[in-house]
Amino acid sequence: MSQGEELGAVVEFKAVRFTDAGAREETVHVPSEVPLTVEANGVEVATLLCTPTEIPSLVLGFLFSAGVVRGPEELREWSVDPTRWKVECTVARTPDVELLGKRVYTSGCGKGVMFATVAELAGRRPLDSPLRVPAARIDDLARALQGASPHYRRTRGIHTGAVSLEGELPERWFDDVGRHNAVDKAIGDALFRGVDLSRCLLLSSGRTSSEVLHKARRAGIPVVLSRSVPTHQSVLRARDMGITLLGRAKGAGFLAYAHPERIVPNGAPAGR
Amino acid sequence: MSQGEELGAVVEFKAVRFTDAGAREETVHVPSEVPLTVEANGVEVATLLCTPTEIPSLVLGFLFSAGVVRGPEELREWSVDPTRWKVECTVARTPDVELLGKRVYTSGCGKGVMFATVAELAGRRPLDSPLRVPAARIDDLARALQGASPHYRRTRGIHTGAVSLEGELPERWFDDVGRHNAVDKAIGDALFRGVDLSRCLLLSSGRTSSEVLHKARRAGIPVVLSRSVPTHQSVLRARDMGITLLGRAKGAGFLAYAHPERIVPNGAPAGR
Repeated sequence: MSQGEELGAVVEFKAVRFTDAGAREETVHVPSEVPLTVEANGVEVATLLCTPTEIPSLVLGFLFSAGVVRGPEELREWSVDPTRWKVECTVARTPDVELLGKRVYTSGCGKGVMFATVAELAGRRPLDSPLRVPAARIDDLARALQGASPHYRRTRGIHTGAVSLEGELPERWFDDVGRHNAVDKAIGDALFRGVDLSRCLLLSSGRTSSEVLHKARRAGIPVVLSRSVPTHQSVLRARDMGITLLGRAKGAGFLAYAHPERIVPNGAPAGR
Repeated sequence: MSQGEELGAVVEFKAVRFTDAGAREETVHVPSEVPLTVEANGVEVATLLCTPTEIPSLVLGFLFSAGVVRGPEELREWSVDPTRWKVECTVARTPDVELLGKRVYTSGCGKGVMFATVAELAGRRPLDSPLRVPAARIDDLARALQGASPHYRRTRGIHTGAVSLEGELPERWFDDVGRHNAVDKAIGDALFRGVDLSRCLLLSSGRTSSEVLHKARRAGIPVVLSRSVPTHQSVLRARDMGITLLGRAKGAGFLAYAHPERIVPNGAPAGR
């Protein structure tokens, strides 16, 4: 995001669509996502990963929900710095740093806890993995992901995560109300079993936001596959990190938003 | 959750289904959600709102993703207390409390920041609102919610939130990659405009987890309406809080998981 440029709710990217017929480039739209740091009376309250529209309403709604202000009259001034994605505001009562520590990681996110240093360290060197997976295998994995959870069929409200070794069907699938928790369960289980994650794909029913991508990068997993879409931030980061980012995978084709070279198109010559 | 009872991935509830033909009770399943506090070497690392299955894998995957451990060998012991939903574990290096403060609220969650005291205070007295809404109106709102976002149609990956005064179609809809952010934007905007939230419904495209419910309770909003499902925790809390909790609302009927008495069934005598 260059200085002064307006980032809307949606960002356009070039992606590669893999189908039965092969692979071709197309233009797609993904939701935008930025880390917005909110500072109230000089106290850092939170960094929200959000779509940077309606920022004053977001800040008021957030500070109200969090108990920092009791109404609009207690939010007195604010300024948004769109180059650093920082909101500085003045509120009636300075937030209690002790209370601010009592944050709860929510099920929507699980808890995309990322220590800045870890995330930076992990991202410094792009992943370099020789893993190659045929497009038809991705379709198989996507179909398996769809049918994997009996809990999903009963509730329509649970996420599934899994780890696939070199495109093989996973033996174990992990459900959670939080899509990040489902991913953490799959990675944790693979760690317990001593699986070589550099030869694995990470499968998730949920959207790939930047922190799912960070989890993959930290685990050294070179391919992330989702039934849903990525955010614009995860497209940008996946391109930097050397991660193959696949989305909209439901068993009949899919999109590659970053590093499509690890996917062997249908009909491609063998031995690629 | 009573002591010693095993909570699985899914919980069964009685709910009321509203259709063209009226209202009838049925049994439904919703995903379970508990607040799991993780303590490593006596340091509280996070409270995860999660489905309490595969807890060791979740804890290892989470601690690994968060940079607290570098592998399974650094997670040495753990014990789970299922009555307090607390995991105590021993890790190779004690987590740095300073670094732990650098949490980023993720887009999946927005940031369900809830200060314990606020949540408790808000929940102490059940909401008592005379608001009544006809079931046909709920269907109209659900259809409007579905068609409200041009960004959703382009991306298939963005959430929408809005506030409806007494069942009227909202004038403004709010999009965000985070479902909680979309809700915060809608509440923040209503606060700016001085809308009487005690006469409002909160509309959301995303699941109703416990913290979306807390946002509604804090704002004094008596009806929460989602296209998706609630978690079991939000069903329990909505019943306590006096909030009417509606889910699976897509324009042709819906389910009421808590306090159905605010919904006037189709075909009910007028003047109820």
